[in-house]
Amino acid sequence: MTQKNQQILLARRPSGAVDERDFRLVETDVPQPAEGQFLVRNLFLSLDPYMRGRMSDAKSYAKPAEVGEVMVGGAVGEVVASRHPKFKPGDKVEGPFGWQLYALTDGKGVRKIEDRGIPLSAYLGVLGMPGVTAYIGLLDIGQPKAGDTVVVSAASGAVGGVVGQIARIHGCRAVGIAGGADKCRFAVEELGYDACVDYKAGRLDEELRRAVPSGVDVYFDNVGGEISDAVLLRMNAFSRIPLCGLISEYQHPEPRGLRNVRSLLVNRIKLQGFIVSDHLQRWPAALADLSRWVSEGKIKYRETVAEGLRNAPAAFIGMLSGKNLGKQVVKLS
Amino acid sequence: MTQKNQQILLARRPSGAVDERDFRLVETDVPQPAEGQFLVRNLFLSLDPYMRGRMSDAKSYAKPAEVGEVMVGGAVGEVVASRHPKFKPGDKVEGPFGWQLYALTDGKGVRKIEDRGIPLSAYLGVLGMPGVTAYIGLLDIGQPKAGDTVVVSAASGAVGGVVGQIARIHGCRAVGIAGGADKCRFAVEELGYDACVDYKAGRLDEELRRAVPSGVDVYFDNVGGEISDAVLLRMNAFSRIPLCGLISEYQHPEPRGLRNVRSLLVNRIKLQGFIVSDHLQRWPAALADLSRWVSEGKIKYRETVAEGLRNAPAAFIGMLSGKNLGKQVVKLS
Repeated sequence: MTQKNQQILLARRPSGAVDERDFRLVETDVPQPAEGQFLVRNLFLSLDPYMRGRMSDAKSYAKPAEVGEVMVGGAVGEVVASRHPKFKPGDKVEGPFGWQLYALTDGKGVRKIEDRGIPLSAYLGVLGMPGVTAYIGLLDIGQPKAGDTVVVSAASGAVGGVVGQIARIHGCRAVGIAGGADKCRFAVEELGYDACVDYKAGRLDEELRRAVPSGVDVYFDNVGGEISDAVLLRMNAFSRIPLCGLISEYQHPEPRGLRNVRSLLVNRIKLQGFIVSDHLQRWPAALADLSRWVSEGKIKYRETVAEGLRNAPAAFIGMLSGKNLGKQVVKLS
Repeated sequence: MTQKNQQILLARRPSGAVDERDFRLVETDVPQPAEGQFLVRNLFLSLDPYMRGRMSDAKSYAKPAEVGEVMVGGAVGEVVASRHPKFKPGDKVEGPFGWQLYALTDGKGVRKIEDRGIPLSAYLGVLGMPGVTAYIGLLDIGQPKAGDTVVVSAASGAVGGVVGQIARIHGCRAVGIAGGADKCRFAVEELGYDACVDYKAGRLDEELRRAVPSGVDVYFDNVGGEISDAVLLRMNAFSRIPLCGLISEYQHPEPRGLRNVRSLLVNRIKLQGFIVSDHLQRWPAALADLSRWVSEGKIKYRETVAEGLRNAPAAFIGMLSGKNLGKQVVKLS
């Protein structure tokens, strides 16, 4: 065990696009667990779009990260010292350990990972918060029926990539929207989307119309903005929109919003914003199904891996502008 | 019975604001019922915001009115000749009789009005489509609990005026938004709203904040646009938005939409567009409750009455710009 911890702090609140100078790397001593605590050495750090919200102090569902404190985020790691009755050295765990090499915890929000032969980093993606978000948003809020057309924005991302595959498992036609030919090819060829529209090709309306000839029954929305406005024009009567994220808005101080709100009315659409942590009672069922589907090869996933804690800010900034394919993680060890 | 019918036709489709020249008054012969039909002499014509949508040929939930045909709309009238087994001369009826003095019908969509001592025009408002819209939108979609704060846009209109009173009956705090001091006074003093914000006074954000100190649990939205954006900033976690109309948008070729969509996400709001005709199974319960509340004096209503069919276009245009108080009707006899 090294004698030093490394941590990335929130140095200041960004206005608009995140900048590397919004973060600061510091070295500190490795802390020792008190009674009831244990020490985790992080192996993989999760980077997720919601973290952009935590950097801001606008009212939200969770309290913001504080300037000068360690950036918040999930990680998987290994217990290296413990004075907690339920966790012992060698245990693999996932939890809110933050952007640092070592984390002290009392076990709140921590789950133990049993070895099923699935790589540890998957517990930050398909078998973690993004996978459960896809599952609950699509199945509980979107309520797809076999034969429905499900459209997914950010289709090659950590959440969207799972949504399309669950839709296919439920007998739906899955149509993705992603930025660039590579992401679209990945969505169709690896994730099994029936079609994928490249919004960067500049013909979103036209290609979307062609990709959803019978309209859209469920729109799983990760992005908002112009892409969602285009989808709104294709929604069917009584369709559903699980609203999961608004990544197109996070980097702009002034919101663009949605223009085609009329579609919500004339098509009697149910749109519902949701946050996966409101649905804790659904996590066990979601993770059981997702683990089975991954083991059976019915759900595939891809990761973009950055190396080393000091590269986390750049990887995070890249993810916010769509540079990742699948789940973005940082390998720490 | 006069020998001539008068009808108002859709002369052309408006682009943007409706103009009197979009309509044309014609005289035709009074038709005679064939077997299975009956003839109605209209007494009151209903004017409603949704008719603006029917004048356009944009895709919507109902097919558009056709250029050269009689304008669509509900009316109450009296059966004057019948070859239909269930309707006889003298019966009072409400149905989709259109903008004309006489209408032939086979009875589809027609309900017979029993004399309960309530004025006939009320069956176009509080005891008709607008009242049922208020009931279903607030109770079924908004799902208010006692103690909730319910905000209603177009609070003094045919729908909004009923929403606030049903909210009060269910133990909620009802806060209206209306255009002008007179409408706000009417909303508070006659309809019993706890407070009303005049959006024309130019301090919507500030006055709304003061009027809803514990935030908004249900926002019954009739208008969209800037008003809805202001309310979105005050919504509570897990609040609901029954979306009933977008009158602020109907007169603009380019939609403005909503900017504060982020609130839908961070507050996990359920927004649902609805059309009252999708919920026919709920009409009997709604009308039974509404009739009882009107008879008991628990629900009050006001009408703005135009005189004579030829004044219907001007009254309709006035209603679209907010000149009416309560339900806008045209007295025909």
